[in-house]
Amino acid sequence: MLVVMNHNAGNEDIDRVVETIREMGYEARPIPGRQRTSVGLIGNDGRVDAGRLEGLPGVREVIPVTKPYKQVSREWKEDDTVVTLPNGTAIGGPEVALFAGPCAVESEEQILGIARRLRDAGATVLRGGAFKPRTSPYSFQGLGLEGLKLLARAREETGLAVITEAIDPEGVDLVAEYADVIQIGARNMQNYPLLRRAGRVGKPVLLKRGMSATINELLLAAEYLLAEGNDQVILCERGVRSFDTHTRNLLDLTAIPVVKSLSHLPIIADPSHGTGVRAKVIPMARAAVAAGADGLIVEVHPDPTRALSDGAQSLYPEQFEELVGQIEVIARAIGRSLVPALHAAGSRG
Amino acid sequence: MLVVMNHNAGNEDIDRVVETIREMGYEARPIPGRQRTSVGLIGNDGRVDAGRLEGLPGVREVIPVTKPYKQVSREWKEDDTVVTLPNGTAIGGPEVALFAGPCAVESEEQILGIARRLRDAGATVLRGGAFKPRTSPYSFQGLGLEGLKLLARAREETGLAVITEAIDPEGVDLVAEYADVIQIGARNMQNYPLLRRAGRVGKPVLLKRGMSATINELLLAAEYLLAEGNDQVILCERGVRSFDTHTRNLLDLTAIPVVKSLSHLPIIADPSHGTGVRAKVIPMARAAVAAGADGLIVEVHPDPTRALSDGAQSLYPEQFEELVGQIEVIARAIGRSLVPALHAAGSRG
Amino acid sequence: MLVVMNHNAGNEDIDRVVETIREMGYEARPIPGRQRTSVGLIGNDGRVDAGRLEGLPGVREVIPVTKPYKQVSREWKEDDTVVTLPNGTAIGGPEVALFAGPCAVESEEQILGIARRLRDAGATVLRGGAFKPRTSPYSFQGLGLEGLKLLARAREETGLAVITEAIDPEGVDLVAEYADVIQIGARNMQNYPLLRRAGRVGKPVLLKRGMSATINELLLAAEYLLAEGNDQVILCERGVRSFDTHTRNLLDLTAIPVVKSLSHLPIIADPSHGTGVRAKVIPMARAAVAAGADGLIVEVHPDPTRALSDGAQSLYPEQFEELVGQIEVIARAIGRSLVPALHAAGSRG
Amino acid sequence: MLVVMNHNAGNEDIDRVVETIREMGYEARPIPGRQRTSVGLIGNDGRVDAGRLEGLPGVREVIPVTKPYKQVSREWKEDDTVVTLPNGTAIGGPEVALFAGPCAVESEEQILGIARRLRDAGATVLRGGAFKPRTSPYSFQGLGLEGLKLLARAREETGLAVITEAIDPEGVDLVAEYADVIQIGARNMQNYPLLRRAGRVGKPVLLKRGMSATINELLLAAEYLLAEGNDQVILCERGVRSFDTHTRNLLDLTAIPVVKSLSHLPIIADPSHGTGVRAKVIPMARAAVAAGADGLIVEVHPDPTRALSDGAQSLYPEQFEELVGQIEVIARAIGRSLVPALHAAGSRG
Repeated sequence: MLVVMNHNAGNEDIDRVVETIREMGYEARPIPGRQRTSVGLIGNDGRVDAGRLEGLPGVREVIPVTKPYKQVSREWKEDDTVVTLPNGTAIGGPEVALFAGPCAVESEEQILGIARRLRDAGATVLRGGAFKPRTSPYSFQGLGLEGLKLLARAREETGLAVITEAIDPEGVDLVAEYADVIQIGARNMQNYPLLRRAGRVGKPVLLKRGMSATINELLLAAEYLLAEGNDQVILCERGVRSFDTHTRNLLDLTAIPVVKSLSHLPIIADPSHGTGVRAKVIPMARAAVAAGADGLIVEVHPDPTRALSDGAQSLYPEQFEELVGQIEVIARAIGRSLVPALHAAGSRG
Repeated sequence: MLVVMNHNAGNEDIDRVVETIREMGYEARPIPGRQRTSVGLIGNDGRVDAGRLEGLPGVREVIPVTKPYKQVSREWKEDDTVVTLPNGTAIGGPEVALFAGPCAVESEEQILGIARRLRDAGATVLRGGAFKPRTSPYSFQGLGLEGLKLLARAREETGLAVITEAIDPEGVDLVAEYADVIQIGARNMQNYPLLRRAGRVGKPVLLKRGMSATINELLLAAEYLLAEGNDQVILCERGVRSFDTHTRNLLDLTAIPVVKSLSHLPIIADPSHGTGVRAKVIPMARAAVAAGADGLIVEVHPDPTRALSDGAQSLYPEQFEELVGQIEVIARAIGRSLVPALHAAGSRG
Repeated sequence: MLVVMNHNAGNEDIDRVVETIREMGYEARPIPGRQRTSVGLIGNDGRVDAGRLEGLPGVREVIPVTKPYKQVSREWKEDDTVVTLPNGTAIGGPEVALFAGPCAVESEEQILGIARRLRDAGATVLRGGAFKPRTSPYSFQGLGLEGLKLLARAREETGLAVITEAIDPEGVDLVAEYADVIQIGARNMQNYPLLRRAGRVGKPVLLKRGMSATINELLLAAEYLLAEGNDQVILCERGVRSFDTHTRNLLDLTAIPVVKSLSHLPIIADPSHGTGVRAKVIPMARAAVAAGADGLIVEVHPDPTRALSDGAQSLYPEQFEELVGQIEVIARAIGRSLVPALHAAGSRG
Repeated sequence: MLVVMNHNAGNEDIDRVVETIREMGYEARPIPGRQRTSVGLIGNDGRVDAGRLEGLPGVREVIPVTKPYKQVSREWKEDDTVVTLPNGTAIGGPEVALFAGPCAVESEEQILGIARRLRDAGATVLRGGAFKPRTSPYSFQGLGLEGLKLLARAREETGLAVITEAIDPEGVDLVAEYADVIQIGARNMQNYPLLRRAGRVGKPVLLKRGMSATINELLLAAEYLLAEGNDQVILCERGVRSFDTHTRNLLDLTAIPVVKSLSHLPIIADPSHGTGVRAKVIPMARAAVAAGADGLIVEVHPDPTRALSDGAQSLYPEQFEELVGQIEVIARAIGRSLVPALHAAGSRG
């Protein structure tokens, strides 16, 4: 951490900074410059609160040098983390994993039907919301427990692993009972009680980037999970808020190489929420794989025009099939391959 | 809702849109234009899901006309909502209310000392975090129950009303036992289980705007509270995320007149989190009142350089005293006044 | 255009809107709704100024339905525009074009050396700034006319087409004398006198998206060029401003399919400025092609650590060579191919 | 400037950074830390290009410490710059100046009529566009020279000083002939040839902040003017691009105290473009003065519903009159006053 002083800060000011740093238990090293003095804080263990220093007289700016996260960083663990699901799907290794399914579980017929088609097309993880966080209190909020049971049935029938979202700390255990991966949605990325509970439940967690979260904040949210002892964490880029209204969000694919340089955790992309428009999902799914994503999570609905939520961004099954073919070639172009499709017989789980 | 068709959409496409709207239970009215046809959806009760229509062939865009919120809107209730606290502080009427206090409750000495000074300076509501949502799992997370008890003691001693944050559904009842106003923080603006619980607890709620929430999303989040039967809701502008790093957030004061035109709910401003820099808090506090805010919530710490959190944005007590004097004049310039200061004797509560 | 009235607007208000629309020369059609009336403006030719209607009493909102641009839209011209350069490079057809070169022309040795290497690697267009718009007045501003002459020499020697930036209306003719494509930089996207001049000069123009330009604004800026009679326009996505500082800009690849659905003009991507970080250029270049870009413009410098500008985002020549190989496979995956490499002999097509 | 190394950077990498810094003519000082080494660059004169260092192996990040601007900074000149116009209006001193007028000059009747009313209401500077940069090539582009002449007539008749925009380098001299202040619009904030010309013309310049310009970029743009010898520069906050569509821009009032702490230049606010909505102009104008603005520039039109541009954000004359009364009180609340109104006789100071 570097404490930059005003150009007219006096020795008294500099001394006070030095003392404060020492009082906080760190080493202080003044660095005189041409225009101003800076004071380096040495020994930062990631717990230093800049606020105390920013408030001192004569201080112009406090610049963090050490990153505030620890266990998620590549410096803590050099090798890529690979999260392996019960049906064999490995996320974060050389293979690219395909998560697909409807926005919400709506009925047995819907979820079983689409699960079979997705499995045959090459997906190995089934997504589907049972508890839906909705912007409006008057929108469909999901089937709840009934939805979880239907997802479990679909897994039994198809061998697909199952991912679904938990939206409150109390619900984490219930979701963990039925799902192979617990999803934390974008709106809950900084819901710390939820993160803590998810960190203790013993199942892999998919953590979606918040609507306007910086990469640092995403990694710090993941740190909450690792700090509770759960290192089976998959990050997910799903678009950030921006100023143009042509798409629902701005899919920030550069986040993929950025995260991979800073952290050992796998990262996948969600081009469905990332764009919010069906016609843009396919090109952006391809682009995500080309950018190095460890997987995709894509909304596919048997009949998008009748979907109870997110119909406009859901692919038709045949679009998904076409997409898988294109992605396969792109993965090979960069030395990767897709997670092998499951056998029709199903249950590896 | 207006469904805008592509310029080359055929009659078949238009008919399908019309039928779908009717199937959804609404009236459809095609409006031929020079370049393209649009179809109006009439009878929208705020529950229409655009997704289903956006997905239909030939549809270019679906434009909402009806606002998706109801009970929070001025159209639902024309007159301003005034939230009155047990000590008489009224928020949303002609008076401007002052909420002040440290970021976090740290000790009995700290909270009692600052409470007395703030009361004497003219504040009538005491803020102080007992449960702190922190970006890093390694930062100070608050004193918890102990903090709540200290706040209650400060209320007894000073007559100040108390506001503090609840961070999970399970904690709402506990917070409600001790506080006069339950705060929902920016990171939790779309934590729907938390909102639902807060909507049922029978105490006023302060709802902070999320980091990158649109005004519509803020109002929809408030709708969750009203939909549970709680209309004692105070909104709070606290800055949104932007691209410049000179301040922690970009305080969006225009949100104040915008909210007041769309909703009957009171709205206050938080210039401390809104700027993140002590020297900017005072001018922005003044500006918020000039823009029509129904109150301010300001961080003040007896010794900001030793604060356990947010020290850099906390005012010194004497700065707060000076601010109150300036604000009083500005309030009068626009035909308002400050909530009268409490008597030193204390407990109106 | 749809004029949405307040729910309590009277008949008088509605009549005034209807009359105003008629006075403006268009047809007005009131559309009564459940909560409010709207008035459709029919016959919009793209010149309607919403301001006049927004200001009328009782008007809540004016919603544009017709897009404000004309000649750039797919509705004006259904087929893709293909821009063909003197050396045969076609941009906007089935082939993907590679523009590459240093940020700035620095010396004869530098530009000739790198041009040969890029030509051999498969690029067909050479980029290089002679006039550099720099954020600071104290930074290197380019070699000017000397730089243009060196670019022309490089073209003679290698057969590469040449693209370089014009930064003021007076300079357009000079640049047009030497370059095959005139570049309008992001900072000048809305420099209308510059656009008008570039629209009249009779050479293809590459128009970069402004730092925070919406797609609509980008297309309207292009409309300035077409309105002057120049339809040889190539658009370029180069990243938009966002809130995270890990990259210089946020490369908005979704803009590519969005532009291609709205407009017939070709669009390429600039992953160098789009990320600002060398290690992110390669994955994002691949992603851009996977997303459907008609080409790439990439900064490559013979010795990036000694570049006079943008060194941190410039590729080493060998990185570019590797990139070309990967892109070739990705292009094929989506049914495209690269513009064929030029013969070493250097004869222009 | 601080060059932060990767935690696994070797001595070789550090040595290379040290050597490069020395080669660039500065002093290098390695600062070993617990997790990583940093290297301080000492003697930075504001011309150091970070790019060269960012590109070196083992470098994680380059953090600027010295600000890149010079003459605009408070460190260069401690005292506030006061810009005084021929009619005595002083901007940047204790008084708050009022600039007002229509978006565009439309006719003699319009400009003379409104000028008289504004003078009587207390404005001392008349705004009005003669050359209008418009997003669409099909919108009204201003009366040009005829507009300039009408502004000069209005000055003669009323004693108001005149401000109007120059949109290209060639037009600067012409505008300077007629106007007292040359306006550089937001879209042209980084139009460097225009800035250079305006810096040499010998008249005060009003420089508007670009749509998504950081404060640093605004100050660097102003530096272009000062570097040409013109220190009569007034900055203007006019709203930045953000994600909400309730207002045209997000007026960033915090920029006012931020600029005043970094620079000696005066800064005014434009609440008309800053909000884009008439009903929000008045509260935000008040807020700007409360935040410490040195003046306001407000659009007022004799009949906003018939304005040729920006009608929706123009005040009615009576609204402006009311605003002046409120602002007067607010200015006094913070120890300032308004620039005294001109005498009806109209003689220029």
